[in-house]
Amino acid sequence: MGSPVHRVSMGDTWSRQVHPDIESERYKQTFDVERLTNILDGGAQDTALRRKVVGRSATHALVQAQLICSGARQGMHAFIVPIRSLQDHTPLPGITVGDIGPKMGLDHVDNGFLQLDHVRVPRENMLSRFAQVLPDGTYIKLGTAQSNYLSMVVTRVELLPGITAELQKACVIAIRYSIIRHQSRLRPSEPEAKILDYQTQQQKLLPQLATAYAFHFLARSLLEFLHDSHDAILDRDFSLLPELHALSAGLKAMVSDFCTYGAELCRRACGGHGYSKLSGLPSLVTKVTASCTFEGENTVLYLQMARFLVKSYQRTQVSLGPTLQRSLPQSVAYLTAPDLARCPAQRAADFFHPELYTTAWAHVAARLTKDSVHHIQTLMRSGADEHEAWNRTTVIHLQAAKAHCYYVTVKSFTEALEKLESEPAVRQVLRRLCDLYALHGILTNTGDFLHDGFLSGAQVDMARTAYLDLLLLVRKDAILLTDAFDFTDQCLNSALGCYDGNVYERLFDWAQKSPSNTQENPAYEKYIRPLLQSCRSKL
Amino acid sequence: MGSPVHRVSMGDTWSRQVHPDIESERYKQTFDVERLTNILDGGAQDTALRRKVVGRSATHALVQAQLICSGARQGMHAFIVPIRSLQDHTPLPGITVGDIGPKMGLDHVDNGFLQLDHVRVPRENMLSRFAQVLPDGTYIKLGTAQSNYLSMVVTRVELLPGITAELQKACVIAIRYSIIRHQSRLRPSEPEAKILDYQTQQQKLLPQLATAYAFHFLARSLLEFLHDSHDAILDRDFSLLPELHALSAGLKAMVSDFCTYGAELCRRACGGHGYSKLSGLPSLVTKVTASCTFEGENTVLYLQMARFLVKSYQRTQVSLGPTLQRSLPQSVAYLTAPDLARCPAQRAADFFHPELYTTAWAHVAARLTKDSVHHIQTLMRSGADEHEAWNRTTVIHLQAAKAHCYYVTVKSFTEALEKLESEPAVRQVLRRLCDLYALHGILTNTGDFLHDGFLSGAQVDMARTAYLDLLLLVRKDAILLTDAFDFTDQCLNSALGCYDGNVYERLFDWAQKSPSNTQENPAYEKYIRPLLQSCRSKL
Repeated sequence: MGSPVHRVSMGDTWSRQVHPDIESERYKQTFDVERLTNILDGGAQDTALRRKVVGRSATHALVQAQLICSGARQGMHAFIVPIRSLQDHTPLPGITVGDIGPKMGLDHVDNGFLQLDHVRVPRENMLSRFAQVLPDGTYIKLGTAQSNYLSMVVTRVELLPGITAELQKACVIAIRYSIIRHQSRLRPSEPEAKILDYQTQQQKLLPQLATAYAFHFLARSLLEFLHDSHDAILDRDFSLLPELHALSAGLKAMVSDFCTYGAELCRRACGGHGYSKLSGLPSLVTKVTASCTFEGENTVLYLQMARFLVKSYQRTQVSLGPTLQRSLPQSVAYLTAPDLARCPAQRAADFFHPELYTTAWAHVAARLTKDSVHHIQTLMRSGADEHEAWNRTTVIHLQAAKAHCYYVTVKSFTEALEKLESEPAVRQVLRRLCDLYALHGILTNTGDFLHDGFLSGAQVDMARTAYLDLLLLVRKDAILLTDAFDFTDQCLNSALGCYDGNVYERLFDWAQKSPSNTQENPAYEKYIRPLLQSCRSKL
Repeated sequence: MGSPVHRVSMGDTWSRQVHPDIESERYKQTFDVERLTNILDGGAQDTALRRKVVGRSATHALVQAQLICSGARQGMHAFIVPIRSLQDHTPLPGITVGDIGPKMGLDHVDNGFLQLDHVRVPRENMLSRFAQVLPDGTYIKLGTAQSNYLSMVVTRVELLPGITAELQKACVIAIRYSIIRHQSRLRPSEPEAKILDYQTQQQKLLPQLATAYAFHFLARSLLEFLHDSHDAILDRDFSLLPELHALSAGLKAMVSDFCTYGAELCRRACGGHGYSKLSGLPSLVTKVTASCTFEGENTVLYLQMARFLVKSYQRTQVSLGPTLQRSLPQSVAYLTAPDLARCPAQRAADFFHPELYTTAWAHVAARLTKDSVHHIQTLMRSGADEHEAWNRTTVIHLQAAKAHCYYVTVKSFTEALEKLESEPAVRQVLRRLCDLYALHGILTNTGDFLHDGFLSGAQVDMARTAYLDLLLLVRKDAILLTDAFDFTDQCLNSALGCYDGNVYERLFDWAQKSPSNTQENPAYEKYIRPLLQSCRSKL
């Protein structure tokens, strides 16, 4: 077996001996961590976010603005606009620019405000791949209405590995800490237990670990789809763009939502120490939280996915010929696939089959999509126009879009497993994570599965039994599965999460270096000493 | 009708004219805001959290330590320990003390670490209301095993109004902003809509507003129960302590969980502006988040509630005599009350009845408690001891404890409404919030209600219809309901949430005052100018 591909961190001053609790977790390895790391292929490492620097530094801005040609509004187009002098960096005439002020995180990113007042931009400064303005003012469209969104689509897809990496880091920190931290007793006669041996701690952290792996494979498959369709788009074949647009919107929303939720859950699972910035978790959480808002607010994005689902399903209602299924985009083909009315599971172990739970997710996503279309149609039959009908059903569309995204993730994870035939040991441990991801989703959304009787109450209980059994299995490999992400200590920047597990020594050492301990307390001379003196003089 | 009891804020420099969008919301008032403010009775105002100052400032610490008398361990007791010199503030012999370093929030709170090495404390420094040590070393217990927890119980109950106030403030900020912020069109022919008129925005914010009101009444009723039982306890009647302990634990967990979730939801509902510290929301969220961890980690607290539920239910299994129901504590009396197997609702409007939804919550809480006891018993019959059985069922216990807490909140809200007979207009608007709170909880947990067929899928759809109708009704009074909390602008400290609604002027003004706009950009001289010069010289 290979040893973990750990990269040594720098700057610590004490011995690098690995804590025995962590060492014993690594000793019992059942698969080759290095092989798993190689399968992850560096995709887990941090990717730099694009830097926005308009507030204080940028000399040029890419401005999205309404293009008006001969009085006709042609929609948003992109223009390169010089905003600061290249001589002395002062704002150019008509430009008001500045920093937007303090933020929750991302303080190193220089987000700015920008006002343009009668600023003229030369025609050559328009980005003209999909639309041009001729010298005589004629507007020529080369793409479709959606090609203007292409740069946003690309950005959203390329964000996913970086967002996922934040959840992966949070899992590494919280799981390593949960091996070192002992608290209370599982039995009165025993010593204090590692907190990862409590069912509630497993229930918090291990589904997040499964999610972190699921999103790795999801991001990879979406990137592949992007590359395929991007090549076609540059050849002016826009046929895949609607599906790509919907997937990039919905999955960006899901990945950022889930990673933010999961990272915060990991932070809280470290108790009071997760509130200390020395854990690395507060800055990680405030960073990943931003991804729920930037590059498209998540609710808006989910609704873009929902529009695609509604349109796709409506197409199946119009014609029901034999060639229909081929004509639906691949990710929504299940909307017309033969469907089971009842889940066939008869015992807990039946839930360990990818086909069973993938089918279950497809069933729920299809039912919710059909339900949302049905609600629109009912409202329109009772006199609402299409806009009102849409606006009065968005809460239901959200539910459908979320179920569809979950289905897509489960499917991409199972497809990734199918490609690992030559790696049975790694495939087995990943398979458990895939099962855990799918079952955790079912148990968090039991209402959606019980609503039409697809699952019975007894089957939900079976799924829960399967899920609790899985937690114990994944628990055994938890440290190895976090090691496999191969983050350096420096990259984690956490007193709780280092590879060697020396949590308490590092926490105490880092706290002592804090300015609040190395500098004088100015409040003592100013307030505390006079107070104490006046108390004494009254005695 | 009275005018809102708004207290004018200070420090702004522009005109104080109220934005017309906000003014028009206030104009259509259907109830007297001042009367509602009086009913809330100042309970909504911020309460100061206890300050912990051990790290840099404290001269004495209250230390919880194991008391050993003549070799026998008597459990945790509290001692007043001098830790710093009253002359020069240096740590006393045997004391190592310092600040724990930077945290996610609460930077003004001086949390410290403390090591005691052979520190002697005089016998008189032990807090001795419920236990004493005589001069000859004899240990005398005056309370019960639980009376040592009394101070924690009191602290947890007294925390609730302050935690609730954070959610209330977040609602005020996000709802006021959602009136001023216009985006997209509900119909292509209309101007851009206030974002609070989108169903998805209502679905985010209005259930949080309902929760903020629900917790106000919950905190008040728990405080009353504390005062009643505290008086009894000081008279050495400890009979109410187990119920008080369970309620204080479970409800502290629920209130802090929900307020943190809700405050973050409000923050994200403000889009990118919610990420700006000028919104006031980031610091509010990082502050309220701490309450999930301090004074008892929430999962541990929920499980204390669960233990009480299990014990209470097990008592009903032992004897089934006619006096049984009276012998169960009041908050769990429903465990033995006659129960419906099916919800009687036949149409959406049936869900607007407090008795219907209170019964529904009691049914689910009782079913989950019985289910968790059943799981323990099954495991014990198959050979597990009680500790193992407990540890393997904690995920199920958590679910039961959460449902019970929700039931208690719904019940306290309906009881508060019953006392408002003389205020029909205020009662009507609060009644809608109570309905919304109860239905939002049902729709977030449909699986629990569908599991045994208590609700059918069709009834869940009815509940959703009722819920969506309620959103529109509460939407109409949203601004008045936030005004009624009567927070000053200064207390909100938010560019988005001021009473006058002048969001964009204030945001721009505050951003311009930021050091990043009033100070030179040191990066220009050091990096940007040389870079631009070298680019030019190459051309």
